[in-house]
Amino acid sequence: MTDTQRITGVLSPVVTPFKADLSPDPERFVRQCRWLLSQNVGLAVFGTNSEANSLSVDEKIELLDRLIGAGIDPARMMPGTGHCALPDSIRLTAHAVKLGCGGVLMLPPFYYKGVSDDGLFRSFAEVIERVGESRLRVYLYHIPPVAQVPLTLGLVERLLEAYPAQVAGMKDSGGDWSNTQAFLDAFAGGGFDVFPGAETFLLQGMRHGGAGCISATANVNPAAIARLFDSWRNGDADAQQARLDQIRGIFAKFPMIPALKAAVAHWGGDAGWATVRPPLVALTAEQSRALVAQLDAAQFTMPGLRA
Amino acid sequence: MTDTQRITGVLSPVVTPFKADLSPDPERFVRQCRWLLSQNVGLAVFGTNSEANSLSVDEKIELLDRLIGAGIDPARMMPGTGHCALPDSIRLTAHAVKLGCGGVLMLPPFYYKGVSDDGLFRSFAEVIERVGESRLRVYLYHIPPVAQVPLTLGLVERLLEAYPAQVAGMKDSGGDWSNTQAFLDAFAGGGFDVFPGAETFLLQGMRHGGAGCISATANVNPAAIARLFDSWRNGDADAQQARLDQIRGIFAKFPMIPALKAAVAHWGGDAGWATVRPPLVALTAEQSRALVAQLDAAQFTMPGLRA
Repeated sequence: MTDTQRITGVLSPVVTPFKADLSPDPERFVRQCRWLLSQNVGLAVFGTNSEANSLSVDEKIELLDRLIGAGIDPARMMPGTGHCALPDSIRLTAHAVKLGCGGVLMLPPFYYKGVSDDGLFRSFAEVIERVGESRLRVYLYHIPPVAQVPLTLGLVERLLEAYPAQVAGMKDSGGDWSNTQAFLDAFAGGGFDVFPGAETFLLQGMRHGGAGCISATANVNPAAIARLFDSWRNGDADAQQARLDQIRGIFAKFPMIPALKAAVAHWGGDAGWATVRPPLVALTAEQSRALVAQLDAAQFTMPGLRA
Repeated sequence: MTDTQRITGVLSPVVTPFKADLSPDPERFVRQCRWLLSQNVGLAVFGTNSEANSLSVDEKIELLDRLIGAGIDPARMMPGTGHCALPDSIRLTAHAVKLGCGGVLMLPPFYYKGVSDDGLFRSFAEVIERVGESRLRVYLYHIPPVAQVPLTLGLVERLLEAYPAQVAGMKDSGGDWSNTQAFLDAFAGGGFDVFPGAETFLLQGMRHGGAGCISATANVNPAAIARLFDSWRNGDADAQQARLDQIRGIFAKFPMIPALKAAVAHWGGDAGWATVRPPLVALTAEQSRALVAQLDAAQFTMPGLRA
């Protein structure tokens, strides 16, 4: 069950750039992904922080094709492929596997609430079976604050039993360490990789058998987060974690996705990056100034971002 | 602002039939829509109870085209066209207008939670402007228990001010009469039609200037609900409402969408109708028997449904 090419480490739910007309901007996207890889961070494109659910399946396929066309290694990619509608999840997942992506991060269908584990099992099972690829690696995406559809230990157990080769792990964005630990205790080490959904739990996760983290702020602070992953057994690990928490704490004072984009716009010297798709709204000029001022005061920079 | 062809009355969020392979079944769909029209009920296809969010945009376009191809009057149709992703909402809305649909029922983008009225305004505004059709009639869809993204009085006021011709009304599925009444008090009579999201509030709604209702159980009890709409000023209106509530109360004891389909399967003599798409699950045989037994005991039937 242990793949030689298993994705581990720190991944970024890559923010998606939009042009002034709100269409996705593949050139900026390719540049940003190249920069993140240069910072030792993998590409969880089409995550929550990517505004993935504000993109059509066609737009996501086009962006993925552009990354591959630009020579970016698909083994470093874990695109989000879970949608409300089964055919959408199947279509994007099949496309990602065909391109050789190292894994896919799969939201449960998230419109209907209060659905049963039977219904969720069947949702994931239909995608896995209809994609029908032995090299598919699914990472289940638990993010109850947003999706409002949680994934339980019992559901993961059933999925692992039915599809031990395909069900490769999960991202836990619940923000509740006791839940992450319960999944680590139950499944880590058995070929099921648990990624906390923020670097806040990176060190704690690694000490309990975690596989890394997939975090919003890996978009802006990638090298430092990746360094803790690489050196979590070192004596300065707690100090590194505290520094990561300090930077994340500043971003967390603002609406996260617009704040990430404002930081990329500022340190990248590219104002167009601040654009978000509705229903999100960009930071106000005042919010952007406050964010940058607080990050400046904390000696934060984004080295190598500016072209 | 008063259109001659404004949709009023009772509409059904038409349940969507699936074949054994879970693909939509256009033949059964056309038959069901014809039957509903014969019962004096309009077609709010692709609503929550239609499992619309479990269908891809392509599947919805195909089903809509099949209804039109079968000669069903688009003026009686109010398809749901709101998606998480702006291009999806634009594409389906534009298609519905092109086909001549009397209106569209538009969910807000529902993945991101806690979004601002500014962001929601911009979402609806982008769809209206990019579709760019003067004959577009948008009905805003307020369903916080499921979408978890409520629509406020202030948002509706802004939309009405910006797009008085296109913003035609709303469906309120919040289940809270005081909210429905607040929208009726603020906007009814000014060319903004408020449809309660269940016949539970049909009589109360009509007495406060409502336009009808759009209700799950109009799939199974259409004629009786439509009769109350037509005769709500009559002396037996309260007795009619009580009878409607009795039938709805039986369905409400079960998971609603599978229960509606189980009833159509039973009274239509067509077991295939019971199929739902994941993440929903069909009623168990025991649940179906209990549903039918309770409806039989209440002298419920679905006249004319069986082919």
